[in-house]
Amino acid sequence: MKVDGKAMRSIWLEPDGWSIGVINQTALPHRLVTARLTTLDEAAHAIRAMLIRGAPLIGATAAYGMCLALRADASDEALDRAYAILLATRPTAINLRWALDETLAAVRNRPRSERAAAAYRRAGEICEQDVAINTAIGRNGLPLIEAIAQRKKPGERVNVLTHCNAGWLAAVDVGTATAPIYLAHDNGIAVHVFADETRPRNQGASLTAWELGQHGVPHTVIADNTGGHLMQHGLVDIVIVGTDRVAANGDVCNKIGTYLKALAARDNSIPFYVALPSPTIDFTVANGVADIPIEERDADEVATMTGRAVDGRIETVRIVPEHSPVANYAFDVTPARLVTGLITERGIIAASRTALAGAFPDRAGTAQ
Amino acid sequence: MKVDGKAMRSIWLEPDGWSIGVINQTALPHRLVTARLTTLDEAAHAIRAMLIRGAPLIGATAAYGMCLALRADASDEALDRAYAILLATRPTAINLRWALDETLAAVRNRPRSERAAAAYRRAGEICEQDVAINTAIGRNGLPLIEAIAQRKKPGERVNVLTHCNAGWLAAVDVGTATAPIYLAHDNGIAVHVFADETRPRNQGASLTAWELGQHGVPHTVIADNTGGHLMQHGLVDIVIVGTDRVAANGDVCNKIGTYLKALAARDNSIPFYVALPSPTIDFTVANGVADIPIEERDADEVATMTGRAVDGRIETVRIVPEHSPVANYAFDVTPARLVTGLITERGIIAASRTALAGAFPDRAGTAQ
Repeated sequence: MKVDGKAMRSIWLEPDGWSIGVINQTALPHRLVTARLTTLDEAAHAIRAMLIRGAPLIGATAAYGMCLALRADASDEALDRAYAILLATRPTAINLRWALDETLAAVRNRPRSERAAAAYRRAGEICEQDVAINTAIGRNGLPLIEAIAQRKKPGERVNVLTHCNAGWLAAVDVGTATAPIYLAHDNGIAVHVFADETRPRNQGASLTAWELGQHGVPHTVIADNTGGHLMQHGLVDIVIVGTDRVAANGDVCNKIGTYLKALAARDNSIPFYVALPSPTIDFTVANGVADIPIEERDADEVATMTGRAVDGRIETVRIVPEHSPVANYAFDVTPARLVTGLITERGIIAASRTALAGAFPDRAGTAQ
Repeated sequence: MKVDGKAMRSIWLEPDGWSIGVINQTALPHRLVTARLTTLDEAAHAIRAMLIRGAPLIGATAAYGMCLALRADASDEALDRAYAILLATRPTAINLRWALDETLAAVRNRPRSERAAAAYRRAGEICEQDVAINTAIGRNGLPLIEAIAQRKKPGERVNVLTHCNAGWLAAVDVGTATAPIYLAHDNGIAVHVFADETRPRNQGASLTAWELGQHGVPHTVIADNTGGHLMQHGLVDIVIVGTDRVAANGDVCNKIGTYLKALAARDNSIPFYVALPSPTIDFTVANGVADIPIEERDADEVATMTGRAVDGRIETVRIVPEHSPVANYAFDVTPARLVTGLITERGIIAASRTALAGAFPDRAGTAQ
């Protein structure tokens, strides 16, 4: 999508044909900084330290991490080591394992001399496939926004609430939750987004607000506590969020706090949609609430906050008393019963075992 | 309660017998700074700039603000002017108007020469009454925690979740939501508190965590997004929050985000209690969700965060893109249907019109 008026993606092959460029998202929204990844370790670090984040982008970066590893050493041992290192970078996103498996399958039975090239081919396809999927998600979600727009009086906007960042910065381009929003905006529909700040890492305030602003989509940043009040007073028409993993039963794992917004949407009869590319579905997990492992991250993410000081320096400040313990769960799981529908590349489907298996029999079958 | 091992209150008459001491809560948790209020304007500023906050403490400070005004000028005009200025400092808390009305009633029909002394007497009574009420709230809420403790295995703690700060820093002493917690802790019950950070002003991270830590109560700071996940996984036994205003129908106005926690408690069959002194009940508001005005505060509270930099300086950093709009609603209203019970100085009562009018016929009657 657009940055300073020009099209940009979150990850790209550099002109040298082998090293990988990414946006260092930890510097946003204050500075647009890119990073060049040249080794397996740099790719793993980029995922672990969250220079890049978002389930689809983690997958794409991991695939390119395999490429960088194979470029240095194409042996079976190096391949297995790269797979293990990259898989361990983040525990929750299912796309990570999917992208690694895809890349592994593309190279495993090839001679060493062909492995790196085959991996780059597959990684490139994974990126293009992500963009194609998200474009389809946008097309499939658009009618939801169009239908609300048709009920509005002249001058009224369609108000979408989203949590965290499931925008193009979380994917290769277009984004998942943002795909219908960008398409509606580009089609001339008056759409306005309430972006949850999304503590503790502020992906909503720093990333979603930034990318919406760069693309020219009207938006308002709110504290995570605010959504319930807005919904109670008719200020939200629809909730659209992304997801890091959808279980076979339709339970949705997403950034911590998503569950609370789903409860508020239900309590106020507001539609709650989850946008997802099918690689996010994990048919091996039968029950999301019970069985998806929830990543616990460093306490400092809650105890401190990083931003731009008045003089322009990026500064980290502590906001919790020195000796107070902190807990930092990164995700929660929204039960399928609270989800109005799943916006996928194959259309909008119910958040249920039957609907998921019916829409993706190819994926569901492999998990048996 | 205790600070550095010694008893302290949030507001006090200075040894000079007329100026007022308060803790400047904007410097917590990093520094314990007190402020001396000597004029009406300083008292109004302390409320407006939130040096002090919390419904009961706002009331106490406003009452002393009337004293300081009358000390300088005891005319009817000065009295009316002080009332108007103090009433306009914060729009949501009902205790503010109550304390001002009480002080006004205590001085109105007196000769000018007696007004200041009468006001100081009434303000002092308001403070002592607040402590007595909160002590009673603690006694009445204690059995809820004792009952949970009795069901626990040896070594297990009673886990209480609270939102914002309804502790002694929000009152004169003891606090409202914290009253049963401090009493349980002082009685030797193993109680542990999850303190919501409470964006945008972080009263949970900076005030609740600080006062619990100073008094020795085990606690953990969590992002506001986290409570739903904890409740889903059996990590919360009871929710206890305070309130800024309870409507005649039992709807509860409290810090923004309280409603979301009430929804999560209901969805997981966890008891959700609201602790309140009866001056917080506003019998003139029939329907809380529809009719309580919600204060909108400065965008910078959401767009920036203040904390302690590594070198010890208190620094404010911006966390939202330069041109992104921000909305900052300070409170929300939790419908009575989500409230398990109201812990008051007269016992635990249902959040309903009948129960409230029955328990406080003296207050309900005056509103007719």
